[in-house]
This record gives sequence, structure tokens and C-alpha cells, in this order.
Amino acid sequence: MKKISFGEMQCPIARGLERVGERWTMLILRDAFNGLTRFDEFEENLGIAPNILTARLKALVEAGLLEKRRYCDRPPRNEYIVTERGWDFRPVMLMLQSWATTHYAPEGKSVVLINRQTGLEADPTVVDAVSGLPISDPVFRLVPGPAANERTRKRYEGRS
Amino acid sequence: MKKISFGEMQCPIARGLERVGERWTMLILRDAFNGLTRFDEFEENLGIAPNILTARLKALVEAGLLEKRRYCDRPPRNEYIVTERGWDFRPVMLMLQSWATTHYAPEGKSVVLINRQTGLEADPTVVDAVSGLPISDPVFRLVPGPAANERTRKRYEGRS
Repeated sequence: MKKISFGEMQCPIARGLERVGERWTMLILRDAFNGLTRFDEFEENLGIAPNILTARLKALVEAGLLEKRRYCDRPPRNEYIVTERGWDFRPVMLMLQSWATTHYAPEGKSVVLINRQTGLEADPTVVDAVSGLPISDPVFRLVPGPAANERTRKRYEGRS
Repeated sequence: MKKISFGEMQCPIARGLERVGERWTMLILRDAFNGLTRFDEFEENLGIAPNILTARLKALVEAGLLEKRRYCDRPPRNEYIVTERGWDFRPVMLMLQSWATTHYAPEGKSVVLINRQTGLEADPTVVDAVSGLPISDPVFRLVPGPAANERTRKRYEGRS
């Protein structure tokens, strides 16, 4: 059976997953956010098979989250730098990290985000930048947008 | 080669992905957030193979994001209700949706989040609830937590 491409769906979650949802992709991004840039560094830190790493890095470059730069000509060596689009994904990952720490770390926190100026632990939370309200407030509702096709319209219309 | 289990890693991102990172899982959650509860509804809305849907629903129940409830005894029929832990994941998904809409929807927005009281479009943003600062502020830094093992410690220590 042909695998349905999430990238061809209109749903933004599906389109996002097409870029970051493959196995290992987010862990590569995590390491890139932490400053790793080279193939060998990713390979060692992740314990990932080299052919998978090659494929995932290529996909991340094509999706515009990483940029490939030649840092040595002889022998040819590349490094992978997080782009602006890539950095823009970091808050999404910090929310995932926070959620998973709350629910799946019975032994306690293995990683914490701290405010370097105050020394206090941060509490990543999604708010609406317009109203300042937490995004979980029932006042917020998803509705079809201007570019919605019929399928999307059907999915989001007529719900209370 | 044995597939490495993300759930056995200490990294919270890996542990989170073990629960929500399989193909289709987040789209099932999306539909559950939108009010779908029954197998047939998910199947029709997603266009997913029934055996895959069965496996993903089972995993979501085991991970504590959905709760399975019998709503009819003859014939036996179950529905799937979002748990508190499941709802707690919704802000993560709204951030993914917002990020993907910004970067991968050249035709415009297909879904928008609106404030029902003001009619204004919301702008989901991750802030630190303690300081109110955006989480992308360079003041925030990931450091090993109290439960960090040696691998985690090595990953997060000694970086600027």
C-alpha cells in the first residue's frame, strides 16, 4: 500500500510532521540546538546508524531547518547549522520536553531550563501573545482559515 | 538490527516521542481534541488503515493520553476520551501547528485559532510562566537536572 504523504495534506500538523516527525529527526535537532554541528558528533551522541543519520540530515536541510556548510575541502567535510526556521522550532521542542518530563519522568527531572540571571527554573507555557491568556483557556477555538479546502472546512466547522 | 527504544532513553524528548512520535499518533490526537471519539470516526476522517488505527489507539491508551470507555454492550463498542494528560499535550500541538503554518503553508492559513470573545486571531507563543519572558530569550539555558545520569550530564554540562 502506498504510504500517504503527510506533506500533501492541508493540515499544518501533518505538514509539520512531514518535516520533523520521522524517527530520530527531533533528537538530531535537539543536539543541533545544543551546539553539535558535525556528522561524527551526531553519530556518536545519538548512537544512530550512519545511513539513517545521512537521510535525516538531508531531509532537515531540504526542509530548511538546517543549513549544510563546507568547513573543509580536503578531505571534503560539512557541518550542519541551525537556520532561523530551525530555531523557530525550538519552543515547540521545549514544550514537548516539559510535557514529557511532567508525565514520563518518575525518577525526577533529568534536564531543567534555568534563567541564568535569576537562577530560577523556567516553566515553559503556551500563551496567546495578543491577549496574554493561557492557550488552554476555553475562549480559544480552532476555525477554518482563509485557505481552508473543503476537507479542512468540514473538520473545523459547526463545532461548538 | 534491534530498533532502539526511545522510551528507554533518559532524554524527555525521546520519552515523549515514544508516546506521541509514531506516524499517525498526533493526527489521531488532533481529531480527539476536535471531539471525535469513535473508531469509525477516526478511520473515516484520517483515511488510516484499521490495523494501524487499532495499534495507535491502544498505544495512546497505554500512554495515558486517551481513556477507553465502553458505550455499548451489544454489540461491544468503545469510545476514546482525551484524559487530563492528553489535554496537557494540546498546547504542544498548537505550537507545532503554529510553526508549521508559518513555514509550510504558502497558500495561507487553513486553520486559525481565534478568541471567541474578541474575535481576534490568537498568536500561540511559549513564555516562561515565572518571568514572563519569551522562552527564546538567551537568558534561558538547559542544564542537567537532579535525576540526570552520566550521559545526560555530559550532554548538558560545560556548554556556554
